[in-house]
Amino acid sequence: MKDHLIELFNACIESSSEEDLQVLQHVLKGIHHKISGKNTIYINSLLHMERKLENGICEITIPLNPLLNNSFEITHGGITATLLDTAMGTLANSQLSPGLGAVTSQLDIHYLAPGIGDSIQCRAELIHKGKKTMVVLGEAFRSDGTKIAHATGSFIVINTNKTEGLNRNGNCDCNSDHLPLFFLANKKRNERK
Amino acid sequence: MKDHLIELFNACIESSSEEDLQVLQHVLKGIHHKISGKNTIYINSLLHMERKLENGICEITIPLNPLLNNSFEITHGGITATLLDTAMGTLANSQLSPGLGAVTSQLDIHYLAPGIGDSIQCRAELIHKGKKTMVVLGEAFRSDGTKIAHATGSFIVINTNKTEGLNRNGNCDCNSDHLPLFFLANKKRNERK
Amino acid sequence: MKDHLIELFNACIESSSEEDLQVLQHVLKGIHHKISGKNTIYINSLLHMERKLENGICEITIPLNPLLNNSFEITHGGITATLLDTAMGTLANSQLSPGLGAVTSQLDIHYLAPGIGDSIQCRAELIHKGKKTMVVLGEAFRSDGTKIAHATGSFIVINTNKTEGLNRNGNCDCNSDHLPLFFLANKKRNERK
Amino acid sequence: MKDHLIELFNACIESSSEEDLQVLQHVLKGIHHKISGKNTIYINSLLHMERKLENGICEITIPLNPLLNNSFEITHGGITATLLDTAMGTLANSQLSPGLGAVTSQLDIHYLAPGIGDSIQCRAELIHKGKKTMVVLGEAFRSDGTKIAHATGSFIVINTNKTEGLNRNGNCDCNSDHLPLFFLANKKRNERK
Repeated sequence: MKDHLIELFNACIESSSEEDLQVLQHVLKGIHHKISGKNTIYINSLLHMERKLENGICEITIPLNPLLNNSFEITHGGITATLLDTAMGTLANSQLSPGLGAVTSQLDIHYLAPGIGDSIQCRAELIHKGKKTMVVLGEAFRSDGTKIAHATGSFIVINTNKTEGLNRNGNCDCNSDHLPLFFLANKKRNERK
Repeated sequence: MKDHLIELFNACIESSSEEDLQVLQHVLKGIHHKISGKNTIYINSLLHMERKLENGICEITIPLNPLLNNSFEITHGGITATLLDTAMGTLANSQLSPGLGAVTSQLDIHYLAPGIGDSIQCRAELIHKGKKTMVVLGEAFRSDGTKIAHATGSFIVINTNKTEGLNRNGNCDCNSDHLPLFFLANKKRNERK
Repeated sequence: MKDHLIELFNACIESSSEEDLQVLQHVLKGIHHKISGKNTIYINSLLHMERKLENGICEITIPLNPLLNNSFEITHGGITATLLDTAMGTLANSQLSPGLGAVTSQLDIHYLAPGIGDSIQCRAELIHKGKKTMVVLGEAFRSDGTKIAHATGSFIVINTNKTEGLNRNGNCDCNSDHLPLFFLANKKRNERK
Repeated sequence: MKDHLIELFNACIESSSEEDLQVLQHVLKGIHHKISGKNTIYINSLLHMERKLENGICEITIPLNPLLNNSFEITHGGITATLLDTAMGTLANSQLSPGLGAVTSQLDIHYLAPGIGDSIQCRAELIHKGKKTMVVLGEAFRSDGTKIAHATGSFIVINTNKTEGLNRNGNCDCNSDHLPLFFLANKKRNERK
């Protein structure tokens, strides 16, 4: 596999434009953060996320790069959504006791201005915490201070400890639609070992 | 720059796990699609998007890969959002006369089931077309047929031809908040030449 | 109190315009449906809701009246929201076993065209049913067939049987933010007896 | 028509329960505000809205009454939506120059706690103002201070002066999907004269 990768890499750099090289560097540097253990999630590494979580606020900043642009050469709305969902989900999970987790059930984003400049910063804050659900506010700003997106999200609180109850079809009898994903994730994790 | 890239690449593959190599291959193969001209947008290449647009329906499919997972080892909600936004935006733009474009102003996503399996397919369809705004439906399905997300989005129709009127601050006097992004994009494009 | 009411009613009809009389008639006829037992909810009576629930679809129709207009003399967006929420909530509750109920946790409405003409019909349909949450689609049409609104809503499934566990502050220790409303409702109901 | 109204009113109070009388009083008092010119919109009168608009904030308060309850005997979600839409729309319109108006194109509401107690207050504030669109924040609180709903809405800015261009089908050639409603409203107004 490594040989194939080297071939692929050489094919990439051979015919690269300046922009392509800039993108390749961004991507490889990002993935290297994950490989070297600086970050635990590939997507977060790829986007070079820097996270700050204190006083009930989660802030995530990423540098901009042509990699992240849509056809209008501004940040793709899906990238802004990825940042918002990460900041909001991180904030939601930080508010819970051990053994509980929060998964996004709904996300509403208003796009306000084009994402351009050096970086984008997302900021998440709790709106409401219930026993079963949480509502979180997310805002995204570009480096000149302009607000580019305003979001609200709903999160479902789930029990991340339970591991019993998974049947053959990957479903479970426990009181949650969102729990099966953990079982499946655990199953997958075990299968790989 | 190429030397630095080669060094970075070697650092990556040296200490890679099997999963890391799988991710690196996915990423390099994706970027190569863009470099070789098979795709025009980096993000779309990176995600290996396959697009079908006919009879007023836009379908986009991507293969799943550990690259796309969140901390629960299921597809990151931001990736699903990126696919939905791309399919919905492509559909919206396909409904317009030349010289007009559609940009996302609002996106609402309900997450219904975890994104797992081999691939995810998004399907976009027009709900409403007005002269200034459009509303589009987006649905995401995993390879076993389960619907994993249901979305609606608002799009603003803009004039993509106008290039006059941009002032020094990157603002314009024309009747649109969303136009400046084109001017900025054009400006940036010209600067690079 | 009846004397005061008669005085109030006389003050109303004395200085009424034709439109005022038309509104008064609509309102009194509506309230009378509730008083005479034809309907159990005041708001539904006031709006003269006609409901049809079959084959997993809930349809609610109301006649239009100046009572329901906003300052632009078209149906107030809040009235359309009320109809949508009623149809969607009715549909959600119809899908549950006895002892369970569904309450709206989130509602997203796209307004597509002005509400004018003789009547408005809302149609609700299930998008997703989980054990803890449901997602429902709602659409509103005016009498000429034009679609005026497209909505999606999230509903939380709650246990409506439990009556124990209510503490002095109207809170409860059970596993739901949404349950207390039932305790409060029951409490209020009992107090009135 | 007045004779028929008197008959209807008598039928109502004859068989009324204490609650029915309380509702009838609320309704008639509300409608009387409109008839006596204290308020210009029936719905706002019926709900006894008290409005405060200063420093870029619009606050609307209504007293609670059994009239406004759903089947769980808490405030109907549609009533909260009506209040939010009114406060948010009033705020949006207050930010515009004469000759321009703002109509709701999208409304997203998170319901956080049951609407109970003496009154509900809604508070609207500007999130973003563009030339074509505005985004507004709305929050609803009950009298004990608990936040019961969090909303965001998109508004389309329209020209309210133009009256030419309406064709026989109630459509217009001007550059707006939302303008026709004004033409139709004006048409209706003229027909009534």
